[in-house]
Amino acid sequence: MENEVAELAGTALFTVNNVWMMLATALVFIMHLGFASLEAGLTQSKNTVNILFKNSIIPGIGLITYALVGFNLMYPGGEGGGFFGFAGFFISTDAAGLTSAYSEGYTYWTDFLFQGMFAATAATIVSGAVAERIKLSSFLVFSTIFVGIAYPITGMWKWGGGFLDALGFYDFAGSTLVHSVGGWGALTGVIFLGPRLGKYVGSKIHPIPGHSMPLAAIGVFLLWLGWFGFNGGSVLSADPGLVSLVLVTTSLAASTGAVGAMLASWGYTKKPDLSMVLNGILAGLVGITAGADVMSPLDAMVIGLISGVIVVFAVIFFDKIKIDDPVGALSVHLVCGIFGTLAVGIWGDLAGLDQLWNQFIGVASVGAFTLIFTGVLWGILKATMGLRVSSEEETDGLDLGEHGMEAYPDFEKNS
Amino acid sequence: MENEVAELAGTALFTVNNVWMMLATALVFIMHLGFASLEAGLTQSKNTVNILFKNSIIPGIGLITYALVGFNLMYPGGEGGGFFGFAGFFISTDAAGLTSAYSEGYTYWTDFLFQGMFAATAATIVSGAVAERIKLSSFLVFSTIFVGIAYPITGMWKWGGGFLDALGFYDFAGSTLVHSVGGWGALTGVIFLGPRLGKYVGSKIHPIPGHSMPLAAIGVFLLWLGWFGFNGGSVLSADPGLVSLVLVTTSLAASTGAVGAMLASWGYTKKPDLSMVLNGILAGLVGITAGADVMSPLDAMVIGLISGVIVVFAVIFFDKIKIDDPVGALSVHLVCGIFGTLAVGIWGDLAGLDQLWNQFIGVASVGAFTLIFTGVLWGILKATMGLRVSSEEETDGLDLGEHGMEAYPDFEKNS
Amino acid sequence: MENEVAELAGTALFTVNNVWMMLATALVFIMHLGFASLEAGLTQSKNTVNILFKNSIIPGIGLITYALVGFNLMYPGGEGGGFFGFAGFFISTDAAGLTSAYSEGYTYWTDFLFQGMFAATAATIVSGAVAERIKLSSFLVFSTIFVGIAYPITGMWKWGGGFLDALGFYDFAGSTLVHSVGGWGALTGVIFLGPRLGKYVGSKIHPIPGHSMPLAAIGVFLLWLGWFGFNGGSVLSADPGLVSLVLVTTSLAASTGAVGAMLASWGYTKKPDLSMVLNGILAGLVGITAGADVMSPLDAMVIGLISGVIVVFAVIFFDKIKIDDPVGALSVHLVCGIFGTLAVGIWGDLAGLDQLWNQFIGVASVGAFTLIFTGVLWGILKATMGLRVSSEEETDGLDLGEHGMEAYPDFEKNS
Repeated sequence: MENEVAELAGTALFTVNNVWMMLATALVFIMHLGFASLEAGLTQSKNTVNILFKNSIIPGIGLITYALVGFNLMYPGGEGGGFFGFAGFFISTDAAGLTSAYSEGYTYWTDFLFQGMFAATAATIVSGAVAERIKLSSFLVFSTIFVGIAYPITGMWKWGGGFLDALGFYDFAGSTLVHSVGGWGALTGVIFLGPRLGKYVGSKIHPIPGHSMPLAAIGVFLLWLGWFGFNGGSVLSADPGLVSLVLVTTSLAASTGAVGAMLASWGYTKKPDLSMVLNGILAGLVGITAGADVMSPLDAMVIGLISGVIVVFAVIFFDKIKIDDPVGALSVHLVCGIFGTLAVGIWGDLAGLDQLWNQFIGVASVGAFTLIFTGVLWGILKATMGLRVSSEEETDGLDLGEHGMEAYPDFEKNS
Repeated sequence: MENEVAELAGTALFTVNNVWMMLATALVFIMHLGFASLEAGLTQSKNTVNILFKNSIIPGIGLITYALVGFNLMYPGGEGGGFFGFAGFFISTDAAGLTSAYSEGYTYWTDFLFQGMFAATAATIVSGAVAERIKLSSFLVFSTIFVGIAYPITGMWKWGGGFLDALGFYDFAGSTLVHSVGGWGALTGVIFLGPRLGKYVGSKIHPIPGHSMPLAAIGVFLLWLGWFGFNGGSVLSADPGLVSLVLVTTSLAASTGAVGAMLASWGYTKKPDLSMVLNGILAGLVGITAGADVMSPLDAMVIGLISGVIVVFAVIFFDKIKIDDPVGALSVHLVCGIFGTLAVGIWGDLAGLDQLWNQFIGVASVGAFTLIFTGVLWGILKATMGLRVSSEEETDGLDLGEHGMEAYPDFEKNS
Repeated sequence: MENEVAELAGTALFTVNNVWMMLATALVFIMHLGFASLEAGLTQSKNTVNILFKNSIIPGIGLITYALVGFNLMYPGGEGGGFFGFAGFFISTDAAGLTSAYSEGYTYWTDFLFQGMFAATAATIVSGAVAERIKLSSFLVFSTIFVGIAYPITGMWKWGGGFLDALGFYDFAGSTLVHSVGGWGALTGVIFLGPRLGKYVGSKIHPIPGHSMPLAAIGVFLLWLGWFGFNGGSVLSADPGLVSLVLVTTSLAASTGAVGAMLASWGYTKKPDLSMVLNGILAGLVGITAGADVMSPLDAMVIGLISGVIVVFAVIFFDKIKIDDPVGALSVHLVCGIFGTLAVGIWGDLAGLDQLWNQFIGVASVGAFTLIFTGVLWGILKATMGLRVSSEEETDGLDLGEHGMEAYPDFEKNS
């Protein structure tokens, strides 16, 4: 009888852990709608169908490729400490994965789905930066390879027990492994593509405003919501103290991120800029992601605030050097991803010079790999399929050119 | 002491099961926003208020009628094996419903609310197909009777322990009992109503594009999210292995549904069609619903892929035979609902000719009942209240005619 | 061994309670997007950026001030029964808060975040009523002080164990403490601000229609969803019987609220009014909030129905007395908040004349304090910073005036 009771209690705990992880998965899933809304809102209405198309197909392509190769590249098992491993094609259907023998925190299926939803976000980050001029077919090929191969390889270096994990690099939920990876892929993409027509003329910068601020705001709120799962699920169990701390640090960083960006934009441009506040929320979220479980609430507020200020000046900086990123993805995901990763060496439980060095190594090695991998990939795509739509199509909009349909056929447009 | 510990452990397990089921209920609830957004997005802006009105009142009407009669028609208790039963008016307030004595997986209240949210989705499916020309009052009467009486009767045949359950018919989460039921009600409605003015002129088909692709995309993402609860909650407990498998099969079918529809539309029309990809996601979800717990991930991917291809050609087919369904509800819910139900006999743990036959019996009997019931109901409504708004009102839009207001008064419209 | 098993079972129960409370927190968070969408949808497109800005920064400001002072004003600890207490600046980082020693239902962090998300909703309620003419800077100062000081003081009176709690006043989830508090702050704000230009000319009322009904509907659905957490989380544990009853009463009240508002508007104005149905849903939700755990489903349906009727006539009444509330926040949150609070004395487990008197005392004392506090605060702000934008800016829209950007730059507007 006693053993039965112990088993019952163990089942209850395993079940609640798994419930939390499944819900975290659902929350990460809804980030894809967040990215779709944000990206559509911050770009022109003539490219909206194209953006929604990319973002609607990415979760599907991401999950399929992750099932096929990604998951087994990222978690190859074995000794650990390495640079590369592969556990074979397709996810397993071994029944042992359904019990706490697999993990105290979740089943094999939950594990796969949670990680797969994560993986697909990396491609979505790229999508925003290359928007309004990239060929759909080339982007789809890039995304498939990026999610299926590049992301899992560097992911393995830390989360799959690879060399960065052995080194002591820390990245709780992916400031580096997800956000900066997406950011580096976006950076190489933007460089290969070049800016949108008319954005930089001589030394002048012509802002191209997004077509729907409500869509952008919906996107950011959904992303904040999704981060409850992104960071909260990265505890990998429902541990009450740890998960609830993570939700507090995450939300406080988002809060000060918003305030930091408001103050920076209000001070610098004299107008409180909504798109900056929205990106400030995201900046705070990305900034806290690497250390959400090792920061105090006050640390989190400091990191969020700095991230919110950084993002404003990063957006201005990228425009100055004519790196055209329609949605600010580089400023949010790459710059604040790097800052958040380094922050683990500066604030919180792990702070210290050694840790800061390890964080730097992680940032640099993941960055170098992703830069080279995606640079080569974009280069091959450019040489073969071509990366950019024709200037005529760009002017008319990708919705008509790529899809033959309009996002808002009922409404008159300003010309 | 030992008994107390056992009770504590039992309470913990019951509590987590019930938490999962409550959250599944919340997720099914948000499907109503998904349907509202999708339907509004895929139709014209002059009918948007009308569509939002219908979809805002349906969950309310659905829950009220389900509380009054539906729940007790669907779960009449008693011996089982029958065609009809009724446990009396209004939900019970018996205290026993609050403990695991009622069910290991949820309380009586959770049961009612989860099932009630399900019920209301059937009416919402109809709403999309009859959009842009149906009289509001007639639709509301139809919905009330459909959710309160027709849906629970066929639902009882399987889920309430009726004759289809005794027969061995399998429908995990309602490819037939929810989706095809909604689809049959939609089919009879469309036939009684006829096509929208100007849709079919002679042998020509004039596409009437939806007015907001972002709304449509928001709708589909919310529906996918909701399906985590729709299918995941249909396990009727938080069983870690089973629920997480269901989430994986559900998401993989949605993924391949999207890809299947993309390839089919790209291949057939030479343009990657966003609305087809969106419907492909839904097609995969509907297709996997009957067997989400008895399929392997690979089975799910195959079923989703086929569903995604089917939906493209079904949309084209219905247009060819002049069945005017503005949002593709018949193709998604009826056609893929039938396919998904039969798929249980073809793939997965239950596959076999006997099962396939049982699946066919279920599809046919539920279809026959719903066709006749809704046919008679639409016929009576047509003869008494009238089904269709005047052609003048249809041309001007139902928003002005039925509601005296506009959805977007600030913006210029194309005329 | 036995003790270990008991501990394991206890951990499981604590963990599931905390999971529920964290998810309730996430659901309350998403209410902020609900409010943002609703408010933006029901106002003019020239003020959309301004509204989104306010609603995007409020959760951040709310959480920061709540961490700094609000939480410790609302839950000062100590003997109880009082009018005011303060446990010092900033939230604690005492490790005891992470175990069930703090509470059986949640950790200290979950407690803070859940309560903080609640607090911020009060400011959001004000935002809607003062929309389209308030200065951004003044509103931000008001919100900060309102969430940080006014809301927690009256909140303490009941939930922090203050004098209203000692008296026997009952307010389960805040019909008074949240909704009417927001409503009183909105009322004084509207009085100090005056109506929008052109709304009341002589004895004529000129309706100013909202610019996007889809946004409004998205807002209301998200608010209903959020109420699963707002009311469901107010049980302060995952208690299966209690939480599931609360979800049922909450959803049934929303349902009858919708129907009540539909019937009232259809009967009175001869047209079924979408914005009334949307506000009817909210009215039912606000109405049930004070007694969601002490009502039977039938009681809930009655309370919701009455709330839905009330809201229609309250909207008409406020317009008649030239109180200009663009989104109906006073009718929903103040009027139905008061009605719902009194309803606890009329229906359900606590009904009785004594209770009704206690409810009245609660409504009156919280109302008096909030009226005076916010009246003085608005008065000071008016005298110092000014409350209202210039009439030129109001005519051109606050988006250009306050933010220098437009919400929908691509689209032609009706002028």
